[in-house]
Amino acid sequence: MSSERSAGDFVPAAASADIGVYGLGVMGANLARNLARHGHSVAVFNRTPARTERLIDLHGGEGDFVPAADPAHFVASLRRPRAVIIMVQAGAGTEAVIEQLSPLLEPGDIIVDAGNTYYADTERREASLREQGIHFVGMGVSGGEEGALLGPSIMPGGTEASYARLGPLLESISAHVDGVPCCTHVGPGGAGHFVKMVHNGIEYADMQLIAEAYDLLRRVAGMSVPEIADVFRDWKRSELDSYLIDITAEVLDRIDPATGEPFVDVIVDAAGQKGTGAWTTRTALELGVAVPAIAEATFARAASSATAQRAAVRAAGINAGTTRPGFATAAERDAFVDAVRQALYGSKIAAYAQGFDEIATASAQRGWNVDLGAMARIWRAGCIIRARFLDDITRAYGEDPQLPTLLTAPVFSRALNEALPAWRQVVSAAALGGVPAPAFAASLAYVDQLRARRLPAALIQGQRDFFGSHTYHRVDDPVGVYHVLWAEPGRAEEKWS
Amino acid sequence: MSSERSAGDFVPAAASADIGVYGLGVMGANLARNLARHGHSVAVFNRTPARTERLIDLHGGEGDFVPAADPAHFVASLRRPRAVIIMVQAGAGTEAVIEQLSPLLEPGDIIVDAGNTYYADTERREASLREQGIHFVGMGVSGGEEGALLGPSIMPGGTEASYARLGPLLESISAHVDGVPCCTHVGPGGAGHFVKMVHNGIEYADMQLIAEAYDLLRRVAGMSVPEIADVFRDWKRSELDSYLIDITAEVLDRIDPATGEPFVDVIVDAAGQKGTGAWTTRTALELGVAVPAIAEATFARAASSATAQRAAVRAAGINAGTTRPGFATAAERDAFVDAVRQALYGSKIAAYAQGFDEIATASAQRGWNVDLGAMARIWRAGCIIRARFLDDITRAYGEDPQLPTLLTAPVFSRALNEALPAWRQVVSAAALGGVPAPAFAASLAYVDQLRARRLPAALIQGQRDFFGSHTYHRVDDPVGVYHVLWAEPGRAEEKWS
Repeated sequence: MSSERSAGDFVPAAASADIGVYGLGVMGANLARNLARHGHSVAVFNRTPARTERLIDLHGGEGDFVPAADPAHFVASLRRPRAVIIMVQAGAGTEAVIEQLSPLLEPGDIIVDAGNTYYADTERREASLREQGIHFVGMGVSGGEEGALLGPSIMPGGTEASYARLGPLLESISAHVDGVPCCTHVGPGGAGHFVKMVHNGIEYADMQLIAEAYDLLRRVAGMSVPEIADVFRDWKRSELDSYLIDITAEVLDRIDPATGEPFVDVIVDAAGQKGTGAWTTRTALELGVAVPAIAEATFARAASSATAQRAAVRAAGINAGTTRPGFATAAERDAFVDAVRQALYGSKIAAYAQGFDEIATASAQRGWNVDLGAMARIWRAGCIIRARFLDDITRAYGEDPQLPTLLTAPVFSRALNEALPAWRQVVSAAALGGVPAPAFAASLAYVDQLRARRLPAALIQGQRDFFGSHTYHRVDDPVGVYHVLWAEPGRAEEKWS
Repeated sequence: MSSERSAGDFVPAAASADIGVYGLGVMGANLARNLARHGHSVAVFNRTPARTERLIDLHGGEGDFVPAADPAHFVASLRRPRAVIIMVQAGAGTEAVIEQLSPLLEPGDIIVDAGNTYYADTERREASLREQGIHFVGMGVSGGEEGALLGPSIMPGGTEASYARLGPLLESISAHVDGVPCCTHVGPGGAGHFVKMVHNGIEYADMQLIAEAYDLLRRVAGMSVPEIADVFRDWKRSELDSYLIDITAEVLDRIDPATGEPFVDVIVDAAGQKGTGAWTTRTALELGVAVPAIAEATFARAASSATAQRAAVRAAGINAGTTRPGFATAAERDAFVDAVRQALYGSKIAAYAQGFDEIATASAQRGWNVDLGAMARIWRAGCIIRARFLDDITRAYGEDPQLPTLLTAPVFSRALNEALPAWRQVVSAAALGGVPAPAFAASLAYVDQLRARRLPAALIQGQRDFFGSHTYHRVDDPVGVYHVLWAEPGRAEEKWS
């Protein structure tokens, strides 16, 4: 045990540490502590030695830490094949550390990037390090600072060989559900960071949907903030049970000590973002996958932060033109509250279907062979979107791994059948009442688009053929390519191929 | 005049041609013909000489063409400073031609990329050629093949100096409205291609909105295709008057000769895309600008093409849960038709506001100083989104160039006041009726978000502070950065900065 080492005591160790952590900010330090607490010997290094010293001072007794004074000693202290987790700033920070470490490593060694890196950057780095025989693993870690310490959800990509080395360590420190770790080998290359990105995109959608439900309960049902907190607590006993519902109730419960007002009324209503919602949407656009609920959630944050536009529109005297239902009895109001619950659940199913569709499409295109059910399984604990609901998704893919969309899993198509009438009423009430519910509406339209026997996309194809000769297929010949000679007098149809 | 030159007669000319066109596909050939028809001497070159020969054979008599056998002769035939328009495949094709031409050119010469290039690529190329003293101009050209020949809308970026040389030629061949050319210097760098990209994004939204209106008239109002064609013709006499409304009526008028069915029913209802809608959305995400109508239009095409999911959802027996209004009288139905018109107009205002917001944000960020009113002015003819409506936008920015959003221009805030009650009814009817209207709904929610005194983004900030210490601002201290110690027993609020 190294717990008696002092902070200044940077002695080159034998090559015995099980794994290294480079970067001892809160996330890195907590990951290192989590590893040490689970009996692994952990080499630790930070560019600024004070952080290393602080970790050893405060937490050296929690397990076997091997502090290093410089990268060479850090690498030298690791057993072979070496495994180093980098937890530094994404982008230039990560790039610099990789450049520093890779000359010190040998073929078969492993570098793990545990930051929030865009998967395409991970793919580029993986290909480049592969030439040196080094395994580069892009690893999603969800659960924030607390998760890193107590058990996160872990999404590593990279080679099978790297997982053979890393898996036992990672699975020991991840969250668990009934003894099953929230960690699995996602797939090769950038698959780990890809799945983490979509996880965050789904998180954006989930939060926006909850926010819309709250807004409707407040502004259409006219409920007070404490009443709404109670509603969310009620919903914990339904299929909506999730960490985000929990913390929504907690946030709504809080009274601001300074003003005595509900805390939610004291917060400036401009939502920030760190980019993963935008990445998820952008990547879906590149893949040609529709993720409108995730996009609307991302845009809702942007719109909330459009201060100048919001002020101008409020000043311009644009009338609402709204009508809101009155609720004559408590029972009528309760019925609306329950309709919002159903709209939230239906929308949530649609949003998750979009996210899983994005993963499935990327997986097929890149040959990652991602096990979609396993993704739902490792999200059941440790991460922000943990929820009872993910058990159903795991089971749905277990029953049919080739499911074309989550919407058609029996459990969800039943749920949609139940939810749709109320969901429609809620989207209608939001539109009539002037309460913006873009993610509820987009999720409903998504289901209605996939349900439609015929879509007006046919008209769009007609327009495109008219102005740009973009051609069309015919329902009686779906492979033939046709064009109408719109500019010629006879407007004859030609078959081009 | 060179009209008597034969196709094989590739004589090195004196350095006298006004401009060169490299790439004689339909678009390039039509641009060259348009230039020649307007009295400019046009050097022409194509990698495959047959195309050059064909142009001279068929159209050599239209003006002064100077055909060249190879790039060196092509460049040698141009007067100084030389100006070359490249019209080849975007990407590798354009890159190759630039590499071929740039060593043949001198400082002060101009290369114009008239293809649909992503503006960031244009910016990269412009910076690189600037080192050689060559002006590189990314130029948007809208109007398709016919526009290129008869008068397109032209959106050139690049330096002021390049526009001094190019402007007179380009303005002579562009479309005109009351003698005013549909061409102006958009701004430096990639501004031209940026604005063309957003033009296309707006076009996606406009087409989707029209498609949703059609679908609602058909499936909610129960109208026949010819009846709907008449409605669109009626709408031409309203503020909706536009090229896209025109061609919608034309497409709906067509009866398929093979089946006797309405043509729109014979087209496979899966819409294609060439990527500019996705680019516009992706770029908005990077800029933090909300463009939900454009995004929904892009995703609607993706959803329409999701064949496997559509088949699965239809097979899964997901019930509609729909209710549709009955129309007891023709007057009731007419009222609904008029409500759809108002919803379409309101949504169109919102969609254009989003596109102009994207241009304004990029312009401010990059110091392009784009004249937004001028953009609307040059879109009034020649391009796909040409419409009466653009006059209003031009005037709105003329009256207030600093308009924070189009929504608050008096003409549009009045129009929104008029449209909103009916628009709400239509979005409600679509939701209740199971007719997907994602762009109508997203546009309405966009207006309602900007209208809102308080948004539930406050709750999202509370959630983010809870699980990720992302902090928040207070309404009574909008610059201070606050955090609640959620994990501590007292849950004290700290001011971090």
